[in-house]
Amino acid sequence: MIAIILNKTPEERISEIVHHIEKHDVKAHISRGVDRTVIGIVGNAGPVLAEQLRQLSGVEQVVKISKSYKLASRDFHPDPTIIQLKGVEIGGDQLVVMGGPCAVESPEQIDEIARLVKASGAQVLRGGAFKPRTGPYSFQGVGVEGLVMMAEAGRKHGLLTITEVMTPEYVDVCAEYADILQVGTRNMQNFDLLRKLGQIQTPVLLKRGFSATYDEFLNAAEYILAGGNPNVMLCERGIRTFESYTRNTLDLAAIPVLQSLSHLPVISDPSHGTGRRELVEPMSKASVAAGANGLIVEMHTDPDNSMTGDGVQSLFPDQFARLMQDLEKLAPLCGKRFDTVKEPVAAVNS
Amino acid sequence: MIAIILNKTPEERISEIVHHIEKHDVKAHISRGVDRTVIGIVGNAGPVLAEQLRQLSGVEQVVKISKSYKLASRDFHPDPTIIQLKGVEIGGDQLVVMGGPCAVESPEQIDEIARLVKASGAQVLRGGAFKPRTGPYSFQGVGVEGLVMMAEAGRKHGLLTITEVMTPEYVDVCAEYADILQVGTRNMQNFDLLRKLGQIQTPVLLKRGFSATYDEFLNAAEYILAGGNPNVMLCERGIRTFESYTRNTLDLAAIPVLQSLSHLPVISDPSHGTGRRELVEPMSKASVAAGANGLIVEMHTDPDNSMTGDGVQSLFPDQFARLMQDLEKLAPLCGKRFDTVKEPVAAVNS
Amino acid sequence: MIAIILNKTPEERISEIVHHIEKHDVKAHISRGVDRTVIGIVGNAGPVLAEQLRQLSGVEQVVKISKSYKLASRDFHPDPTIIQLKGVEIGGDQLVVMGGPCAVESPEQIDEIARLVKASGAQVLRGGAFKPRTGPYSFQGVGVEGLVMMAEAGRKHGLLTITEVMTPEYVDVCAEYADILQVGTRNMQNFDLLRKLGQIQTPVLLKRGFSATYDEFLNAAEYILAGGNPNVMLCERGIRTFESYTRNTLDLAAIPVLQSLSHLPVISDPSHGTGRRELVEPMSKASVAAGANGLIVEMHTDPDNSMTGDGVQSLFPDQFARLMQDLEKLAPLCGKRFDTVKEPVAAVNS
Amino acid sequence: MIAIILNKTPEERISEIVHHIEKHDVKAHISRGVDRTVIGIVGNAGPVLAEQLRQLSGVEQVVKISKSYKLASRDFHPDPTIIQLKGVEIGGDQLVVMGGPCAVESPEQIDEIARLVKASGAQVLRGGAFKPRTGPYSFQGVGVEGLVMMAEAGRKHGLLTITEVMTPEYVDVCAEYADILQVGTRNMQNFDLLRKLGQIQTPVLLKRGFSATYDEFLNAAEYILAGGNPNVMLCERGIRTFESYTRNTLDLAAIPVLQSLSHLPVISDPSHGTGRRELVEPMSKASVAAGANGLIVEMHTDPDNSMTGDGVQSLFPDQFARLMQDLEKLAPLCGKRFDTVKEPVAAVNS
Repeated sequence: MIAIILNKTPEERISEIVHHIEKHDVKAHISRGVDRTVIGIVGNAGPVLAEQLRQLSGVEQVVKISKSYKLASRDFHPDPTIIQLKGVEIGGDQLVVMGGPCAVESPEQIDEIARLVKASGAQVLRGGAFKPRTGPYSFQGVGVEGLVMMAEAGRKHGLLTITEVMTPEYVDVCAEYADILQVGTRNMQNFDLLRKLGQIQTPVLLKRGFSATYDEFLNAAEYILAGGNPNVMLCERGIRTFESYTRNTLDLAAIPVLQSLSHLPVISDPSHGTGRRELVEPMSKASVAAGANGLIVEMHTDPDNSMTGDGVQSLFPDQFARLMQDLEKLAPLCGKRFDTVKEPVAAVNS
Repeated sequence: MIAIILNKTPEERISEIVHHIEKHDVKAHISRGVDRTVIGIVGNAGPVLAEQLRQLSGVEQVVKISKSYKLASRDFHPDPTIIQLKGVEIGGDQLVVMGGPCAVESPEQIDEIARLVKASGAQVLRGGAFKPRTGPYSFQGVGVEGLVMMAEAGRKHGLLTITEVMTPEYVDVCAEYADILQVGTRNMQNFDLLRKLGQIQTPVLLKRGFSATYDEFLNAAEYILAGGNPNVMLCERGIRTFESYTRNTLDLAAIPVLQSLSHLPVISDPSHGTGRRELVEPMSKASVAAGANGLIVEMHTDPDNSMTGDGVQSLFPDQFARLMQDLEKLAPLCGKRFDTVKEPVAAVNS
Repeated sequence: MIAIILNKTPEERISEIVHHIEKHDVKAHISRGVDRTVIGIVGNAGPVLAEQLRQLSGVEQVVKISKSYKLASRDFHPDPTIIQLKGVEIGGDQLVVMGGPCAVESPEQIDEIARLVKASGAQVLRGGAFKPRTGPYSFQGVGVEGLVMMAEAGRKHGLLTITEVMTPEYVDVCAEYADILQVGTRNMQNFDLLRKLGQIQTPVLLKRGFSATYDEFLNAAEYILAGGNPNVMLCERGIRTFESYTRNTLDLAAIPVLQSLSHLPVISDPSHGTGRRELVEPMSKASVAAGANGLIVEMHTDPDNSMTGDGVQSLFPDQFARLMQDLEKLAPLCGKRFDTVKEPVAAVNS
Repeated sequence: MIAIILNKTPEERISEIVHHIEKHDVKAHISRGVDRTVIGIVGNAGPVLAEQLRQLSGVEQVVKISKSYKLASRDFHPDPTIIQLKGVEIGGDQLVVMGGPCAVESPEQIDEIARLVKASGAQVLRGGAFKPRTGPYSFQGVGVEGLVMMAEAGRKHGLLTITEVMTPEYVDVCAEYADILQVGTRNMQNFDLLRKLGQIQTPVLLKRGFSATYDEFLNAAEYILAGGNPNVMLCERGIRTFESYTRNTLDLAAIPVLQSLSHLPVISDPSHGTGRRELVEPMSKASVAAGANGLIVEMHTDPDNSMTGDGVQSLFPDQFARLMQDLEKLAPLCGKRFDTVKEPVAAVNS
């Protein structure tokens, strides 16, 4: 249930309405859009509360939301969410590109890749310090040291950083070193992890489970939002189908669908979405044409010797650079700005 | 197995090589590319023939093709197939758009839609006279009369026409009236229909079965090619997945994949691929960005009252017109020309 | 819409009711069950007819059926359909087993296999004369000759026969030689083929499309029933999923689901449903435990050299014999009789 | 890599071999089968170690295992794993049934259901205290209190207990109260949870991820085994497909496949596998016929008012009792004993 507030209702009155709502043992979330303010009511709000609200001065309308997710819904938050992060805007007109290796391997590796990512005009450095691996004997990432290496490379080259967090215990340390935390496809319904991420304010990139429906995906985002962290972006990274030529089937219709059902930014991952290097460029362009707010792309200086064996889907640096040039031309036709971060961003966490 | 012919080998010598091949109880298909001529050998060509061929003058190289399809393969035919049709080029640089209703309903309906399709700059009029329907009590199309109506509308407005053929018996009559014949998703492995289409020269748009792999898709095309009809285009129209919000999941990676495995033109169908009108525009753009040679898009003047009940995925005429304007800007960035057919094309079959 | 007739209504009165119905430009199908007679009304039956029917003497109740299939529905035909075929009952208490090779290869091969099928206690000989193959260069079956060979083997060993028909043109010749016609998974929505099969009375085993929903499957059966052929059996043969260890995922829940939605017999195909010989025995037993009316199982005397390359899913004769012994014990616990056909069945078509 | 030990090699010699192996910086796991003892070597065992081992006295053979999972493989452990638990044998000839509600709701509810589960002859009481829910506003389980209620009901009625654990932090408390810990489908690749479960000895029932391949499933089990906990059972609970009539598609072929690839017991969950009460009985029987070592079945005294809304797939008590009677007859035909636990099992953790 949401209550739509009359234009020009004073803040004081809104507080009174919130106070009234919370007497009913439910939670109120205020969303201030350009055009209107909306109060989302989460919990077992019965018809009695709805009726009372309708009669309060300042309340224009009370609308029942039948979807199981509330805060993630466009109904509740009609304007798009724009996450402001050290001069980068995710979710608005800016096209944001996150590039880097599957895994952080050494200080030299991540520093060199950061330099190339920056030189190509991308804004965010990606890299995994903790890796979720199908089998227990595969390389599991270099751990906390990797976080340090990546933060340093990001700081030096003026890039934001994103890294995956796999378990609630590591949320705090990852948030200390990285600008954005990523939840991997296998953890989309790791509800304790989602709850923990709801308790911080660090932006979260939530990857779609490889067989998750849109509804389940938005409910997973709702766990984070309901905890109090509004900085969530959704990432389409391919779903599992019968086709085995590609690693996954990148579902690009998810981009406009999620943007209509939700106000959260939508990022596309053509690397995992296809699993094949030669498909990253066409699928990157197609993602932007479908309206994506950004891309997350694997790039490696020596893909054939990457430690995770995911090199087959990583671009070579020159391919990444060419892709960025193409995107710069394509973006304006798709309603997006392509701002490279010309000035070094501020040092991380300083 | 293919035999690659030395540059500048005289035609006469090529004929002798073909003659030699055919003594071995196999078929030879000649493909003349810009750079080289290739002879495809189809049938049980054993190592003896391979060895003999290697020693013939004029033969540069003999290569075994391990794929189950041969004529559809890029190995056999390195240059893209370009289908020339009354001034329209399908498979080359030209972006081709096919628009129109799900079903032909009346002379007035198809005439008015043809006028709008033409005015928007598309080159081909689509419309079904025979409709494959899940249940026997649904509207099954108006039949042969519909072919006549559509041919007349196409002729009048200077548009090529495409229509679906469902059974071998109707191939000839459909080919009499339409410029392109469509094989629907449920008939992708109707092998008798494919064999019959191999016996004519009318271009065929073959839709991917909704759960067909790329390999099965190209093998279905091979049936038509092996029969002797080289004019085949492939159409990605969405695959069946667990997601039910959209009617199908449009697999845009299929576009670059099919273009790399095969030389045949690839058309995208965002209408059936999503089943939702509001997704047709973003998925059309994404298709072009992914490299599609063309689009097939449903448009109806009164979608809510369409006879097939497919109106929910049909664009309104003004939406179609706007889409065409957007595509005109997008095409050059994706390596495609956007030529509207300014002059009326010649009358159909005259 | 169906009209349920009062018990003990005389035949003459029922004819009058049918006559009344058909004045409304719809079709009436009579279904005589043990407990009650039901008239199915197919076509655009409006509320006027419904109201009139309710008032006719002899009509107990008029019920709207909201499913898109009518004649295939349990609502219309509450008792199970039992197909009587030369002493074998398909759809009742008898467990029916169809065994034989993927393809008829020679008179000797099919004769020897028929002998073994008979000796093991099965009632029906399976074998393909026309084979649907993914690629055009694979073995396509021996054709009409194969029909003759199989009919002869069936006659000699006292077995019913089943064979696949792929195209409307071959329906008549296949029906001349075989007792049951099979529609393959790729042809489940070959509507012209289904319509043609509706015009004969030969029993049809309709295989589920490898990505067909239950609803689509029953609508495909409806095409045959609506044409006038009531002798349809449904065959679950595995669906396509992401799992590639097995050729398909055999959906055994389909058995009780289809038996509750429909009155038609349900046969299970563990050979195609798994694609692996070692899984045929456990899946056969599981099918019977799930309530299947019968099984269709591939058996070959020399599977490694079968002409279709499907030998990997064919049982050896001794495995087939052991399976039959196990089924004989299992059947009574699952509410089924296991009658081997002790006496030779009458010669085919004599 | 595994080293197969010569028959009658004394324990002392085996210890020496293990000692030799572990000098190479790898782990050795001993598996003592009826026929032979096998030492599994996990880690980067190079060709040097292989060569040395081959020459050690007591080593019969050294075999490389190419699968990514080792300890879960039949190659390593040829005999089936049998988990002995207070007189119940899981993985051998005994058919084990786990019954109970989706969620523990109150002491009275779980006590009454435990009484009925016991009276029907099942050996294990199931019930969730912590519930993984798609959305954050759904009932999330009663928590630790629920563990206490269930342990008390199990003790009183002489039943083993199984409950789900969702996060590493709760493993210890769950293991204190329950006999078996369940990992849910969404957590199959929650690798930190799996690692934690590898550090205890409490048996774990690992549910297959709803889109996991067999290979991924066995690799997830490998995480637990590699940690040192050999007591793992695998649970097939349905996979996600395009069919939406059933909640999931129960993949019964998984039972014989997993039993051939692995030595671990395989349990079937027809309740989640179908999501429909009326399908639980046929799918339970089919599971046993396919060779399942046990079943986990939802039963509730008041399904329509269950707190999770999962009542639609829960059996009524009388249905559960009838199912148990049917299974008692079916089990011997499928190579299984059906022992009800006649005597009260010992009190939990006493």
